[in-house]
Amino acid sequence: MPSSTTAGRGRPGYAREDVIRIAVEEFNARGYEATSMGALAERLGLSKSAIYHHIASKEEILVEATGKALEELRAVVDGALEASDDPVEQLRLLIAGTTRVLCEYPAYVRLLLRLRGNTDVELAIMERRRGITRALVDVVERAQAEGSLRTDLEAGVVARLIFGMINSIVEWYKPEGQYAPADLAAITPEMVFTGIVRSRS
Amino acid sequence: MPSSTTAGRGRPGYAREDVIRIAVEEFNARGYEATSMGALAERLGLSKSAIYHHIASKEEILVEATGKALEELRAVVDGALEASDDPVEQLRLLIAGTTRVLCEYPAYVRLLLRLRGNTDVELAIMERRRGITRALVDVVERAQAEGSLRTDLEAGVVARLIFGMINSIVEWYKPEGQYAPADLAAITPEMVFTGIVRSRS
Repeated sequence: MPSSTTAGRGRPGYAREDVIRIAVEEFNARGYEATSMGALAERLGLSKSAIYHHIASKEEILVEATGKALEELRAVVDGALEASDDPVEQLRLLIAGTTRVLCEYPAYVRLLLRLRGNTDVELAIMERRRGITRALVDVVERAQAEGSLRTDLEAGVVARLIFGMINSIVEWYKPEGQYAPADLAAITPEMVFTGIVRSRS
Repeated sequence: MPSSTTAGRGRPGYAREDVIRIAVEEFNARGYEATSMGALAERLGLSKSAIYHHIASKEEILVEATGKALEELRAVVDGALEASDDPVEQLRLLIAGTTRVLCEYPAYVRLLLRLRGNTDVELAIMERRRGITRALVDVVERAQAEGSLRTDLEAGVVARLIFGMINSIVEWYKPEGQYAPADLAAITPEMVFTGIVRSRS
């Protein structure tokens, strides 16, 4: 609960990144729409007026947290496209790289994935997210066109299912848990490329 | 907007299942926590008092909609375990069956998957959901133990990634779209078992 000693100009020792991190935890636990600035202030032990010394609005937090996730994902896409001309290798790098980003920023990506598009700001963020998705679909289509992938599975569906598999990591991954990001980033491309059944050879 | 003609005993022609369906659309679009009974009444064109002739609470809708999804998923699990003694075949039936259920009830399953566990009712629903997950993990572990699956990919992670892939269908699947549930139910087991890369044979 906020106390009178934290009101006014008093700023308990929060670095900006801690405010963002804790706010995103609240959004993910209670729902972005259902979380008020008052509830955030309470969670942070700040008065309703003191929280405005740290952040101007819920939207500011949303933009900053999802912006960080989008930046990292965009860097993976750009890196994969630059690293190789082979679409299968690009796809492998894309799958491994996005897996790593999701393991490193599960809360921010979770917030990104759960946006509902109820405001212009959310719609703009979702448009950037779609840019990442389109890049993956494009790589899958090129790999399929050059004959490296099975053609009985439609590229658009395959791309969505790949993303769905990777995205689901944010629902359960614990950065302090038994798997390092690199462990999962080794598993996901293998599973997508050759499946889970032991080969008959 | 509710008008005075819909107040009191007046019940515009809503079947119970329509009320549930429209309410779940609202929950999915705005967030369960952020949707009030007043907002639901407005969406249905009912007065705030008239909506209580249809439903007693938001929770009643939540329980009924997720209960339907859980029933269908439980039937898939039970059916798969009865249909075969081979864990790989059970897994194939489980993946195909849950894919079909998700295509048939995307909105109800989406609501089920996005529960946050903020109330006892939600926690009870999530416990039933975990029962389904445990059944899948168990089948994957048995298939791995009998040597049918690769052992370099850990069973718990594999099961979560499979579920993640399938669950993601509710984020984009349109029942009126180009894919029938059976189309997707044919793709998902293939993709999980043997992957997307064209075999070298």
